[in-house]
Amino acid sequence: MTPAAPCRVLTLSGGVGGAKLCLGFDTILPAGGQTVLVNTGDDFDHLGLRICPDIDTLLYTLAGLANTELGWGRRDETWHFMETLATLGGETWFRLGDRDLALHVERTRRSRQGQTLSAITAEFAANLRVASRILPMSDASVRTRVESSAGLLDFQQYFVRERCAPAVRALHFVGAEAAAPAPGLAEALASPALEAIVLAPSNPYLSIDPILSLPGLRLALRAAAVPILAVTPILGGAAVKGPTAKIMAELGLVPSALAVAEHYHGLIDGFVLDQRDAPLAPQFDLPVHVCDTLMQTLEDRQRIARSVLAFAALLRSAAKSRQ
Amino acid sequence: MTPAAPCRVLTLSGGVGGAKLCLGFDTILPAGGQTVLVNTGDDFDHLGLRICPDIDTLLYTLAGLANTELGWGRRDETWHFMETLATLGGETWFRLGDRDLALHVERTRRSRQGQTLSAITAEFAANLRVASRILPMSDASVRTRVESSAGLLDFQQYFVRERCAPAVRALHFVGAEAAAPAPGLAEALASPALEAIVLAPSNPYLSIDPILSLPGLRLALRAAAVPILAVTPILGGAAVKGPTAKIMAELGLVPSALAVAEHYHGLIDGFVLDQRDAPLAPQFDLPVHVCDTLMQTLEDRQRIARSVLAFAALLRSAAKSRQ
Repeated sequence: MTPAAPCRVLTLSGGVGGAKLCLGFDTILPAGGQTVLVNTGDDFDHLGLRICPDIDTLLYTLAGLANTELGWGRRDETWHFMETLATLGGETWFRLGDRDLALHVERTRRSRQGQTLSAITAEFAANLRVASRILPMSDASVRTRVESSAGLLDFQQYFVRERCAPAVRALHFVGAEAAAPAPGLAEALASPALEAIVLAPSNPYLSIDPILSLPGLRLALRAAAVPILAVTPILGGAAVKGPTAKIMAELGLVPSALAVAEHYHGLIDGFVLDQRDAPLAPQFDLPVHVCDTLMQTLEDRQRIARSVLAFAALLRSAAKSRQ
Repeated sequence: MTPAAPCRVLTLSGGVGGAKLCLGFDTILPAGGQTVLVNTGDDFDHLGLRICPDIDTLLYTLAGLANTELGWGRRDETWHFMETLATLGGETWFRLGDRDLALHVERTRRSRQGQTLSAITAEFAANLRVASRILPMSDASVRTRVESSAGLLDFQQYFVRERCAPAVRALHFVGAEAAAPAPGLAEALASPALEAIVLAPSNPYLSIDPILSLPGLRLALRAAAVPILAVTPILGGAAVKGPTAKIMAELGLVPSALAVAEHYHGLIDGFVLDQRDAPLAPQFDLPVHVCDTLMQTLEDRQRIARSVLAFAALLRSAAKSRQ
C-alpha cells in the first residue's frame, strides 16, 4: 500500500497521547494525508535490541493493534518470552511481549544491515497497512537524558524503571545538535496540499522538545507557511496521562495550558484549549480554539482532528485577508 | 547449583539423538558427574541472534524442558513472535518459539558484552538447574558448511531450509583449524574419577566430526587413558532419526554400524552395537557390546548409560590385567 495522497497534515508526536490525535487524522484523511514526525529521544538499546517506544506506539495505534488496556505494546499479547528470560537471569524491568518482540528483533536486524530507521519504519508501516506516513524525527541517534534528583538518568531508566519518581531538573537531548531531520520531512513540508502543522497533545518537554531540538527544524516548520497549532496536553491543570504536570511543577512552572502555550511561544500560530480551561482563553496572546479535547472514543479523536483542521483553515484565511 | 561431583563421563554429543544418552548419564550420575562436549558447528546467526541448536537441545533435554513432540525447541511453546514476524516481512524458515527466543536474545546480549559461549552456557545451565556440565566444543566460531549437489550451503540452510534434500559431497568445518577446545575440557579430562569418554549416538559426520576436527582434540582424548566408546547411531542399517544413513550413502559408504566404527578407527576402544545388528559383531576389529540401543523411555536411556559404564569398566579392567 503506497500512500497516494499528498501530505495535508504534519503532526509532531510522542507516544500514547499524541498517537490518539494522530489516529483521528489518520482516519479522516485519505491514505498519505498525514505525516507524523515522531520523537525518537526515548529510543534505547535493551537486551541487544533497538527499541523505539514512540514509533512503535504510533505503528500499533494506527494499525489498530495497540493494547488499550495496558496503554503500551500490542493487543492480544502474551508474555512467554519475558517469563522465560526471568528464569535465565535476564533483565525484565522493561516488559516486551511476544508479539511486540518481533518488531524489535526485525528492526535491530535491519538496522545492523545498514537500513536507516526511516526506511525500516516505512516498511513496517506498509506491512502493517498504516495509512499515514510515520517518520522518525531523525535517522541519527538522539537520546533524552534526565537530570534529576536521582542523578543523570537515561530516559527509560527514569520513565519505566523509576516510574518518573525522581524530580526533573533539566532534560538533555544527547546527539540532537548533530542530528538531521528524517529525509521524508522536507517532502511533507513541501507538499502543496499542506494545511497545518500540529504539535500533538504529547508531553512538551519529554516528547515534543526532542523533535524541536533538531538544528533547523523550527525554521523549516515556519518556512512551510501554514498554521502551526498546538493541542493542549493539559486539561484543567492536569495531564490526561503521564508526568507532564508533575514535570512542569518540578521545572518551576504552573501546570496549565497557558504555560504550555508559553513554552511554544514564537513557534505556534494557534492553540487548541480544552473547554475545562475556557476561562483561561482571554489570557492567551495568540488565537485559541476551545473544544472538548478529552479523547476517549475514536469519534472524539476524529472530532478533535476535524476541529484542528477547521481552526487551521480559519487561521489560513485570516492570514490571506491580511495580505 | 554448582556441580559438586568430579567428572566421571565425558560425552561428545550433537543434538537430539546424543542428548537422549546424555539424559541417561545425567539421571544416573550425581550432579557434575557428566560433562557434555557439544557440537557448535551448527551454530549460526539468524535474525541478528546467535543460535546454538545443539547446546539448546542439551540444555532443554537435561532441564526437562524439551519439546518431545516437535523433537526440537521447548515444551509448552507458543509462536506469537514468529506469527508477528511474518506480518513484518521477516524470515520465518527457521522457527523460534516465544520461550525459546529468550535463550537466543539473552545469549546474544551477553555474547556482545564479551562473555564467552562457555561462560554463558554454564550460567544458563545453572539457571535451568541442569546437573551435567554443558561445554560448547569451543568458544571460537566453527561453522559447518555442506558441499552438496545444490552447491556450498551453510549448515542450517542445508538442514532446515533444504530439509537435507541435497546430496552431501563433503563437509567443511570452517574455523576449526584455529579453534581451541572449550576451557572446561581439560578439567574434565584431568578428573581422577573419569571412567569413560563416550561418542554419543549422534550423526558422526555432522555432529561428532566437527568436535573431533579441533586441533589436538583426538590426542587429548587419548591422553586421558580411559576407554573411548562410541554408541551406534545406526540400527539395522538405518538411523533412528535424521539423515545419517542418507549422508553415508551419499558419501559412498554402506550405512551400517560397521562403517561408523570404521569412521572412528584409531580413536575408539569399544563400540556399542544394537542387538538388531548382533550378526555383524564378529566383523568388528575392536571390543563390541551388544544391547538394545533404541531409546524410547527414560528407563531406556538410563539402561544404555549403565551398559556403557559397565562396558567401560570391563575394558578398563582388561587393560589393567594386560599391564
